[in-house]
Amino acid sequence: MPDRSEAEQRVRASFARQPAMTTIGARLLAVEPGKVEIELPFSSALTQQHGFIHAGITSTIADTACGYAALSLMPPDAAVLTTEFKVNLLAPAKGERFVAVGRVVRPGRTLMVCLGEVFAEEGGKRKQVALMTASMMVISTATGLRD
Amino acid sequence: MPDRSEAEQRVRASFARQPAMTTIGARLLAVEPGKVEIELPFSSALTQQHGFIHAGITSTIADTACGYAALSLMPPDAAVLTTEFKVNLLAPAKGERFVAVGRVVRPGRTLMVCLGEVFAEEGGKRKQVALMTASMMVISTATGLRD
Amino acid sequence: MPDRSEAEQRVRASFARQPAMTTIGARLLAVEPGKVEIELPFSSALTQQHGFIHAGITSTIADTACGYAALSLMPPDAAVLTTEFKVNLLAPAKGERFVAVGRVVRPGRTLMVCLGEVFAEEGGKRKQVALMTASMMVISTATGLRD
Amino acid sequence: MPDRSEAEQRVRASFARQPAMTTIGARLLAVEPGKVEIELPFSSALTQQHGFIHAGITSTIADTACGYAALSLMPPDAAVLTTEFKVNLLAPAKGERFVAVGRVVRPGRTLMVCLGEVFAEEGGKRKQVALMTASMMVISTATGLRD
Repeated sequence: MPDRSEAEQRVRASFARQPAMTTIGARLLAVEPGKVEIELPFSSALTQQHGFIHAGITSTIADTACGYAALSLMPPDAAVLTTEFKVNLLAPAKGERFVAVGRVVRPGRTLMVCLGEVFAEEGGKRKQVALMTASMMVISTATGLRD
Repeated sequence: MPDRSEAEQRVRASFARQPAMTTIGARLLAVEPGKVEIELPFSSALTQQHGFIHAGITSTIADTACGYAALSLMPPDAAVLTTEFKVNLLAPAKGERFVAVGRVVRPGRTLMVCLGEVFAEEGGKRKQVALMTASMMVISTATGLRD
Repeated sequence: MPDRSEAEQRVRASFARQPAMTTIGARLLAVEPGKVEIELPFSSALTQQHGFIHAGITSTIADTACGYAALSLMPPDAAVLTTEFKVNLLAPAKGERFVAVGRVVRPGRTLMVCLGEVFAEEGGKRKQVALMTASMMVISTATGLRD
Repeated sequence: MPDRSEAEQRVRASFARQPAMTTIGARLLAVEPGKVEIELPFSSALTQQHGFIHAGITSTIADTACGYAALSLMPPDAAVLTTEFKVNLLAPAKGERFVAVGRVVRPGRTLMVCLGEVFAEEGGKRKQVALMTASMMVISTATGLRD
């Protein structure tokens, strides 16, 4: 397992190369081996027709949090790709700020299974709005992919 | 079941109120009762760290296609909310254009189960990149939500 | 919310009416509001071709644990039906005994979202072998279903 | 890709080594490369508390159908393990007979993604009761697992 600072540095460098995160305004918060947190401030540009953050956007930050939680435990000659995820939407995503927390539940050599949670924050209160399970594949850098 | 033109009109009006679709550049293609297609041109602003469209964005258009396929079969006093979806990513999302097709598999009174497929197109060829199953809830407009 | 002993009594009575549980040899362990545990001793009659407990059987006890965790929070005039679940298989299901723990994550009025975990026990050690997320529907007894 | 008769022979031999299939009374119907069908006659021993076939049992035959659809496309030095599946339950599983159809949607080298459908038959009518998506891992026989 990579040490804590290497894992963090690697995840921060890769996150900075994800234009989708910049486009939606997401920021990387805490990074530790096997756990990553991402913040997304509310933006009306990301809403669906009822004014809630689109479930796909909620999933986007949860997927990135899970993917980087997995990458943080991978060897240096590996890159990460999502193979599948499922998300249960527990409540409409309304709030000032959203925090996605991704954790590795099973750090396999080929697949890492992760649990993702997304919380909405408003007026100092936090409510869980989404629950994700995801499979992240450990891809050899021999494929040309790097992280 | 609403007739074909009413269903289409309703879906087009609600889609137009989804700022997230405008933000990512998605457009509504065909709408028929129980089936909706959405197009997303490639944009580097929507990519993850390897240059592919982010899995969350792929999911976003599939979710919207499924949600509106469900809405197209709902009574006038109903709105649609996603309760869960799962996506299997079949291939990296690279291409010039992506098309999400959402279909209702089971049009229930409370829940509609949908199947979503996302295809990448490049040089006249089409390849499936994602497979989604989703549950859409029929929400009473008495909640204040409208579609 | 029903009180603790009513919830337990109701779940135990309904579990006793699940022939599938008897067939596979599963037993109900702890029941509390929002949380249910089920035990399954290893049986070679339940294995797949490599000698592990079949993933479908692992899912069967996780589904029942989640369903009854949900039922334990439902009003008296409701019955429970699973609408969907997903299971990630974290390790082959080998061991002397398996314990499924189902918990309600979101106790909605129409849908309850649950998290299920299955552990394999062998030689005093416990290892998680499966992770489930599930949606349980609150069904009116007016449909004729009872629990 | 193995030829048709080799694929079928291999799947039939492995199915015969699944005690769980015998226990529940499931039989292998058609096998072709990338597609497998399994039959389960109704048995009250497999029901949940309302008299329907338990969702876990429905999932068990769908999982086996998907797993063998995947195995039918794998090289001889590979075995199959399910890594995850999700099932949407479209209708209560009541009927005289159930047929699960598993198909490979994406035949990857490491993971095969499958679509499973379960149909209930009664009085000559067929109704879909479950929809599954599943990931099957291609396991090297160097692990000791064989199929």
